Amino acid sequence: MKINGTPYRTIWQDADGVVQVIDQRWLPHELRIVPLCTRAEFATAIRDMWVRGAPLIGATAAWGVAVQMADDPSDASLAETWEVLHETRPTAINLRWALDEMRRTLAPLPPGDRANAAAARAAAICDEDVEINRRIGLHGLEVIRAIAATKPGRPVNILTHCNAGWLATVDWGTATSPIYHADAAGIPVHVFVDETRPRNQGAQLTAWEMNSHGIPHSLIVDNAGGHLMQHGEVDMVIVGTDRTTARGDVCNKIGTYLKALAAQANGVPFYVALPSPTIDWRVQDGVREIPIEERSGAEVTTVQGRAPDGRIVAVQISPDGTTARNPAFDVTPAGLVTGLLTERGLCPATADGMAAMFPDLKAAAAD
Amino acid sequence: MKINGTPYRTIWQDADGVVQVIDQRWLPHELRIVPLCTRAEFATAIRDMWVRGAPLIGATAAWGVAVQMADDPSDASLAETWEVLHETRPTAINLRWALDEMRRTLAPLPPGDRANAAAARAAAICDEDVEINRRIGLHGLEVIRAIAATKPGRPVNILTHCNAGWLATVDWGTATSPIYHADAAGIPVHVFVDETRPRNQGAQLTAWEMNSHGIPHSLIVDNAGGHLMQHGEVDMVIVGTDRTTARGDVCNKIGTYLKALAAQANGVPFYVALPSPTIDWRVQDGVREIPIEERSGAEVTTVQGRAPDGRIVAVQISPDGTTARNPAFDVTPAGLVTGLLTERGLCPATADGMAAMFPDLKAAAAD
Repeated sequence: MKINGTPYRTIWQDADGVVQVIDQRWLPHELRIVPLCTRAEFATAIRDMWVRGAPLIGATAAWGVAVQMADDPSDASLAETWEVLHETRPTAINLRWALDEMRRTLAPLPPGDRANAAAARAAAICDEDVEINRRIGLHGLEVIRAIAATKPGRPVNILTHCNAGWLATVDWGTATSPIYHADAAGIPVHVFVDETRPRNQGAQLTAWEMNSHGIPHSLIVDNAGGHLMQHGEVDMVIVGTDRTTARGDVCNKIGTYLKALAAQANGVPFYVALPSPTIDWRVQDGVREIPIEERSGAEVTTVQGRAPDGRIVAVQISPDGTTARNPAFDVTPAGLVTGLLTERGLCPATADGMAAMFPDLKAAAAD
Repeated sequence: MKINGTPYRTIWQDADGVVQVIDQRWLPHELRIVPLCTRAEFATAIRDMWVRGAPLIGATAAWGVAVQMADDPSDASLAETWEVLHETRPTAINLRWALDEMRRTLAPLPPGDRANAAAARAAAICDEDVEINRRIGLHGLEVIRAIAATKPGRPVNILTHCNAGWLATVDWGTATSPIYHADAAGIPVHVFVDETRPRNQGAQLTAWEMNSHGIPHSLIVDNAGGHLMQHGEVDMVIVGTDRTTARGDVCNKIGTYLKALAAQANGVPFYVALPSPTIDWRVQDGVREIPIEERSGAEVTTVQGRAPDGRIVAVQISPDGTTARNPAFDVTPAGLVTGLLTERGLCPATADGMAAMFPDLKAAAAD
């Protein structure tokens, strides 16, 4: 998407063939673009969250393999690269998928052919992500267009949580793709951006995206969405998903569930942008079956931001001695989800609906 | 309550008759106790939120009148003091109540009798607040005791939002009073403290109270309560209220409504600690009738805390150019409230229940 008028992806090859990424640790205060030239640099970029978001982590890992293959295309190098990159974020499902895909493509080839094949496959993985997100956006655009038709001349107010934006993908984002498409189609939109404590990905990343691309938006605390829905100020909710079960339960950033409850209580449609690779066909009951990561309490007791003197610092908000609990995700039961916006179209959040939309994927997962 | 073993109120006369308060702006990082010696100092303390919380604001205003009467007990002084203190926080209902009460008490007296009468009435207003909160706590204790009986040997997990603690009152607090009483009765409790963005009163004040008094607690982000309730980690919710309608709709700090929705969805009892002066008998439908204050967006785009160098600073979390919406309160419909913990006992959150518990107050309000 655009940064002050110039189109960007989150990862790309420059004119010299060097892979460049946006180092997202400095957003929203500073836009830093850095080259990644060695496998070690790719590993650091993933581990230390210069890049984040499931699709972007996968794309970055794919390029990490490609860069290593140009340096050493041996079988040992390929095997070691899978291990080195996988251990950077071992629970990231897209990371593993991308590494498996690169290995599957490269292992049968003679080493001398691997560098070119790896670069081609990494570029294709990026393009495939962009295409999935573009299609999600086109299907979501129709939902927004239908709401816009009910309130001509007034903006469609869309609430989103966390960052399922283009910064989490290669381009478009998932939850944001319908928003960018609506804006491009001339439909007036206004986005309520949940700040999304504890890591504030909404305030730091989604607000930055909206600001950079020029989408009207308002930052709100995570507490505010219920009140806004109660008063008719939200026309729809769109969120992303980290993992979706075969019956449509949605595991996403902590707090998503509270917004889904408020949406249902107030008759606000609640959509989940769902790239099909995020479906976990082996799991049915998300609340019972999905283990929720508990992250460091320091994420709760401190907040990072820009101090008046310009430095980026983490300030402590609670007393010395107070400890915190920090579940990172929650599960929104399928019954609270109005629909799943997938790359193939709008799908009911039910086992039957998902099986009908993705019979091939469900069958493949059963093998 | 206690600060590291020593009992405190939030406002008191010291041995020399000087009124002392805790300057709450420095919590949780520093305990500063300051004397208030002139009407101007009382006005500053209320306006600049050295003290906050409806009951404490009222008590502070009452002492402000008393201090001024010792200096100048004339009719003109009394009238001017009402105006000067009222304009410090003109929407605070307890402030107005306390000022009216002081004027009602003092106006009929000869000026020479006013200083002593004012000090006596201010002290009585403080004691009355303590007694209301103590009784709320005793009624809430029985609710906690009943839950404790269902899980012997394990702590009762109580979630609270914002600070309806002793720092918001003269002592005990409202929502915290049942917790302090349970702890004193030897019932093991553990408190989930919502940080309560945007001003983080949970992280800054409630966590400090719990920490200082020695109540086991965990700080959580406002997003986490739904997940914890889904997984049986919360036995009950107790919150305060800024204003309660005659049918039991509860206007409280933004985000309360989302926790009430999650409590109902998961069968977790949701109690509101309600001192009867907080009931607004003229209002029925809280969502439609109560105007919600929108505060500065800067409260959302910045977070105050202690920097690594020890300074208290506000850091900016969002990009330059992003603006925020900041509704300060929301309304929890009565249907989501399990019960109202009042100084007279546990009361259903219904028009009939409230009328039966407070027939005298309802009749007086109708006059």
